[in-house]
Amino acid sequence: MLLEAIYHRPKQNWAYAYDGQTLHLRVRTKRNDVQRVEAVVGDKYAWAQTVISVEMRILSSDDKYDYWETSVKPPFRRLRYAFRFFGEGETVILTEKGFVTELPDNPNTFFDFPFINPVDVFEPPAWVKDAVFYQIFPERFANGDPSLDPENVEPWGGKPTPQNFFGGDLQGVIDHLDHLSGLGINAIYFTPLFEATTNHKYDTQDYLKVDPQFGTNEKLKELVDLCHERGIRVLLDAVFNHSGRTFAPFLDAREKGQASKYADWFHVREWPLQVVDGVPTYETFAFEPLMPKLNTEHPEVKAYLFEVARYWIEEIGIDGWRLDVANEVDHQFWREFRQVVKSVNPDAYILGEIWHDSMMWLQGDQFDAVMNYPFTNAVLDFFAYGTIDASSFAQAIGAQLAAYPQQVTEAAFNLLDSHDTPRLLTICEDNIDKMKLAALFQLTYPGTPCIYYGDEVGINGGGDPDCRKCMVWEPEDQNQDLLRFYQETIALRHKHDALRGSAISFTYTGEENGLIVYERASEGERLLIAINAREEAADLTFRVTPAGNGGQAQAVDIPFRGFADKATEAAVAEPTADPVDPVVVKPVASVEAGPSSWSVLLTNADAYQADKELRTDAQGDLELNMSGFSYLVLKQV
Amino acid sequence: MLLEAIYHRPKQNWAYAYDGQTLHLRVRTKRNDVQRVEAVVGDKYAWAQTVISVEMRILSSDDKYDYWETSVKPPFRRLRYAFRFFGEGETVILTEKGFVTELPDNPNTFFDFPFINPVDVFEPPAWVKDAVFYQIFPERFANGDPSLDPENVEPWGGKPTPQNFFGGDLQGVIDHLDHLSGLGINAIYFTPLFEATTNHKYDTQDYLKVDPQFGTNEKLKELVDLCHERGIRVLLDAVFNHSGRTFAPFLDAREKGQASKYADWFHVREWPLQVVDGVPTYETFAFEPLMPKLNTEHPEVKAYLFEVARYWIEEIGIDGWRLDVANEVDHQFWREFRQVVKSVNPDAYILGEIWHDSMMWLQGDQFDAVMNYPFTNAVLDFFAYGTIDASSFAQAIGAQLAAYPQQVTEAAFNLLDSHDTPRLLTICEDNIDKMKLAALFQLTYPGTPCIYYGDEVGINGGGDPDCRKCMVWEPEDQNQDLLRFYQETIALRHKHDALRGSAISFTYTGEENGLIVYERASEGERLLIAINAREEAADLTFRVTPAGNGGQAQAVDIPFRGFADKATEAAVAEPTADPVDPVVVKPVASVEAGPSSWSVLLTNADAYQADKELRTDAQGDLELNMSGFSYLVLKQV
Repeated sequence: MLLEAIYHRPKQNWAYAYDGQTLHLRVRTKRNDVQRVEAVVGDKYAWAQTVISVEMRILSSDDKYDYWETSVKPPFRRLRYAFRFFGEGETVILTEKGFVTELPDNPNTFFDFPFINPVDVFEPPAWVKDAVFYQIFPERFANGDPSLDPENVEPWGGKPTPQNFFGGDLQGVIDHLDHLSGLGINAIYFTPLFEATTNHKYDTQDYLKVDPQFGTNEKLKELVDLCHERGIRVLLDAVFNHSGRTFAPFLDAREKGQASKYADWFHVREWPLQVVDGVPTYETFAFEPLMPKLNTEHPEVKAYLFEVARYWIEEIGIDGWRLDVANEVDHQFWREFRQVVKSVNPDAYILGEIWHDSMMWLQGDQFDAVMNYPFTNAVLDFFAYGTIDASSFAQAIGAQLAAYPQQVTEAAFNLLDSHDTPRLLTICEDNIDKMKLAALFQLTYPGTPCIYYGDEVGINGGGDPDCRKCMVWEPEDQNQDLLRFYQETIALRHKHDALRGSAISFTYTGEENGLIVYERASEGERLLIAINAREEAADLTFRVTPAGNGGQAQAVDIPFRGFADKATEAAVAEPTADPVDPVVVKPVASVEAGPSSWSVLLTNADAYQADKELRTDAQGDLELNMSGFSYLVLKQV
Repeated sequence: MLLEAIYHRPKQNWAYAYDGQTLHLRVRTKRNDVQRVEAVVGDKYAWAQTVISVEMRILSSDDKYDYWETSVKPPFRRLRYAFRFFGEGETVILTEKGFVTELPDNPNTFFDFPFINPVDVFEPPAWVKDAVFYQIFPERFANGDPSLDPENVEPWGGKPTPQNFFGGDLQGVIDHLDHLSGLGINAIYFTPLFEATTNHKYDTQDYLKVDPQFGTNEKLKELVDLCHERGIRVLLDAVFNHSGRTFAPFLDAREKGQASKYADWFHVREWPLQVVDGVPTYETFAFEPLMPKLNTEHPEVKAYLFEVARYWIEEIGIDGWRLDVANEVDHQFWREFRQVVKSVNPDAYILGEIWHDSMMWLQGDQFDAVMNYPFTNAVLDFFAYGTIDASSFAQAIGAQLAAYPQQVTEAAFNLLDSHDTPRLLTICEDNIDKMKLAALFQLTYPGTPCIYYGDEVGINGGGDPDCRKCMVWEPEDQNQDLLRFYQETIALRHKHDALRGSAISFTYTGEENGLIVYERASEGERLLIAINAREEAADLTFRVTPAGNGGQAQAVDIPFRGFADKATEAAVAEPTADPVDPVVVKPVASVEAGPSSWSVLLTNADAYQADKELRTDAQGDLELNMSGFSYLVLKQV
C-alpha cells in the first residue's frame, strides 16, 4: 500500500457537513492500490456506545488516485473518525497522528469533526441545480428600442470590434422572451447592465443606474417581472473589484488628489493618479487604467457596494449576482456581502468568477458557486480539441468531483464558452456534431449549465471581440437543427431528476478513443448516456452494473446504543466497550449484474431511434453500435 | 520521483500571505526523493516581464515527506506559480492542472494567488511570541481574602476532589505577583473567574460578574492594572460554548419551557429540559447536564456574548480571551467575535481550545492561536514517556511546522500540562531531570510557552482533580533548584531573539536514542541546543552547518522588468518574452562549513559549565560529551 499517496485533512472537501445532520468523509489512495476502505466512526463523548465501521465507496478516480467517500449521520452532530485500509495482506489505519496497524483503544488520536453548526453548513440555493442558464451580452442580443442607440451605432450584424456599438437593449430582450422560453432555459445571466463607457460595461460609472443605452431601472424591473412570470430567474454582473474611470469617486480623486474625500476608496501607490511607462500609479484590474481597483476594505466602499447589492435584489427583484474578478477582492468583503445578500433573499445565487482553485470561496461563508472553467477545459479538451482520450477525460472529471464538497458540484456554473472565450462552435472547428456532443455532456452533467447567447442557433466566433457578434434572429439564418437539439436536450434535463442530481459514474471509457458511457441515477430512475466523440464508428460492449457507485451512497445512521448504566457521568468518563472490532455497515446497495432493459430517450446514432428498447444479455452486458459523433441517452425500464 | 506523494493546494499552509507584501509557498515531496525544487513565479498580467525561478529550501521533514518552502515578494501583490522538481535524471513540473515535463508557454495552468488583501492577512499580535504565560487555576493559587471563602472551605493544601473548595482568590494572586515577576513570566492565563457553582467555574452563572468567592470586578481591575504595571498581560477564559445550569436564561427556559423568551437560546431536542437515561433532552457539553450548549447562532445570544467579550477588554483591560471548547461553536460566531474583540483592542490575543487539527480556525478570520496539544504530545512522548526516539520526535515537530502558516507557529500556545491533564512532573514519573528537559525544549521553541501554576516549584499530580492541588508557598516545600532552572531558562528566552523567532532546524537527531541538537537563529545570533533525553551518558559529533535551513529564508523580491514598448494595453495582452528558462534566484544564504566557536549559555552536563567556550574542528564538526539527562545551550561567538 503506498502510504505516501494517502491524504486526508479535516474540512474542505475531505470532511464536511452536507446538511444539518449529515457528514461526508473522503480519503484519497493511490489508484487501484487498496481493495477496501472503512471509516471507523463514533461520538467522541460516547465512543463505546456509538462506534461502527462504515464501508466506503469510490466516489471517483483520476490518473493517480482513487477518492473514497462515505456519508454518515452522527447521533449528536459530532464525529470522531479514522480510516481503515485493506490491501493485499495488510491493514493500515490512518488517524490524525498518522498511520497505525491496530485500532487504538480510544479515539483521542482520531480525526475530529467537532460539531455540525447549521450556520456553517454550505447550502447553495436549491433551485440552482434545476436551472438552465442563458448568458446575454446585452449590447449584442437585440435592439428593441432604437431611440436608445448610442451615436455611431452600427447596423445589426456587423463585425464587432473592441469599441463599436450595435444598439442591443433591454426592450430587445423583452421582445425575445418567447425565444428563451421556447429554448427551455429558466435563468438569465446578464453581463453588466450598469452605466459605463464601453460596450461591455465592465468599467462601471454608476452602480445604481441601468445604462441609458440599455434602458432604465424601471425597464429592468419590467424585464425581471416578465421573466419571473415565465419562471425565469435573472442574475446580474457585479463588478466590485474595480470601478470604471468615470466613476464619480474616482473622478473626484483624480481631480483633487489626496484631498479628495474618496482618496482612500482606491489603492494608490503614488499620487497623482496617472500612468507611467504603462503602469498606473494606482492599482487596477491587470494594468488597465480604465479600471481602478476599489479599496473593498474601506467601510464607506463596503457600505456603498452592499447598498448596491441590496438595491437590485430588493427593489428590482434580481435573483443573484455574478461577481467579476471575484478572487482579487478580499474574503472579508465577500463574507459580509453574503450576509447582506442572503438577508435580503436567502435564495439568491452568489456566483464568483474564479478560473483557478476555488476551495477557499466555496465553504459556505462566501460564494454558492464559481464559473466552472476546469469543467470547461476538460469538456473542450475531450470533445472539441480532441487532445485527451476518454479515460483522461473521465479522470479530469473525477478529480473535479473529488476536489470539492458535493454541494459545490450541485450548484456549479458549467459553461463551455462566454464573452471571455472563443465560441463553442468555433472551438469545435465549426463541426456542429462535435458541438452537440459537448453540449449534451454539459446538459446531462450535475450543476447548472449555461448557454452563451446564440450558440443554440449556430453563431460562431473567435476570442473577444469576435465572440460578441450580434444575435441572429432571422429563422433562415439560424441553424434550426441545432436549435431543436438544444430544445430537446434541455427538455430532457428538466424531465429527468437523475440528470439534475449529482450522482455520476463512468461506466465505460474506451482506451485511446472517444467512447464514454456514464450513468446518472436518482432514487427513481437510472439513465445511461453513451457518446462516441470521434468521427469513426465504433462498437462497444460493457456491463451496465456500476462499480458500486452508480447512485449516491445512502447516509448511514450512526446508532447510539445508550449508556448501559444510565449514569451519564460515569459513562462519559470511561467508555467500556471494546471498539477494536466495530460492526461494519455497508451503505451501498449492491447492484447485481443481470438482464435489464433500456429505452432510447434521445439519439442520433444510425442504429437507433427514439423509443426503441434495448436489452442486455443475461450477464448484464450491453452492446452498442455507435456511428461517428453519435450519442444515445437510455433509461432503464 | 514519487509523484503520488507530491501535494500542494493553494491557501491554508501551502500558499499564504505572511504579511502585506510577502507570500510563502510550500510543497510536499516524498522524503529524500527529490534533489532540488524551484518555484517558478511571476505576475499573471505581466508574465514575461516578471517570471523568475526561486530555489526552495526544506522547511522541515517528517517520516514520509520533505516540506519545501520559499518566500517571495510579488511586485503587484499577485502571483502565478508552479513547482519544478529535479530528481535523478528527471525534471517534473507541477501546475494546477497536474504534472507536465516542459514549462508551459504561458502561466494559465499555473497555481494562482490572486491578490494580497491586507484584511485577509493573518497577523497575530506581535507581543505573543515574546510572552511567557503562566496558567492560574484561581481556586487553588492563593487565598488572599479569607472573608470570601465559600462555606465548607477546606484547609489550604488538602486533597482536591471534584467538589471541594480551598478559598483561592484574586487578592491571593495580587499578593504573589512578586513570585510571578521573579519567575520571569509576562502573561497570565486564568481559568474562569466568572460566577459559577463549581470550583472550576466552567458552568458560568453570570458572564459579567467575577465570582464572589474570587472577589469583585473592581478587584480584577486592580489585579489587571497591577499586572500591566509589571508588564504582565492577562488572559481570561471565555466559556461561550455552553453556560452553566444556573445561568438565568437557562433557569427561565427550564421553568417556562417553550414559552420562555430564552427558549431559543439553547439547543433543545425535546421539551421539557430533563435528562433521560443519562442523555439530556437539550444539547450540552458532552452529556453534562450542568453545561447546556448555547445557541451561538441566535442574534440575542451573539449580542450578549459579544458584549461580554467587549466589557472585560474595554472596562477591565484584559489582553485577550482563551475560548473554551472553541471548535464546537460555529465559525460564523468566531468570525464576528474576532471583529468585536479586535475593534476594541487590535492587540488582544484570541486563543482557542482545540485539541485536533485547527487549520480552519487559523487563517486570520477567527483565532490567533490554539492550545498546541500536538506539540504537548510530541514533547511528552519523547522527553517524558520515552515512547519515541529523537528522529521520530524531530519528525513530529517537523510535521507540525509544515502543517500551518509560519505565523501560527509564532503565536502558538505551547503547554505541557494544564488543569485538564496530569501534571508534567507526574508524567515524568517525578523525575525532575526529565521534567527540566521537557521544559527546556518548551522554553526554547517558537510560539509562547505556558507554565501551569506550581510546576515551577515541583508540584506533581495525576489527572483532574489531582492536577488542581493548592499552590505551595512555603519556600522549604518548594523545589528551589527547579525554580531556579525555570527562572534562568525564562530569562534566557527573554534575552535571546533567536529563541523567540520561528526559525528552528534539527542539526542532529540520534537514531534510536535520545540525543537531539537543534539550531535557533535570528538575524543577529545563532544558538545551538543539545539535549540528551535519556539516562545513559552519550558522546556525539556533528557538523554545525545547517542543511540550508538554519535560519529563515529571506524573501525574494520578484523583479518587474517593465513593459518594453511602454504601451500598456499591448503588453498586457501579449507577453512576448520566453519564460521557459527563467532566471534562478537562490534566497538561502549558504552557510559554509568551517571552524566556529561557541560559548556555553546554560548547561547541566558534567563536562561543561557556563561561559566555557567550545570550538569545532576545521571541518566544522563539534564533539559533545553529554551526561545522562543533560543539556547544553550554546551561542556562536
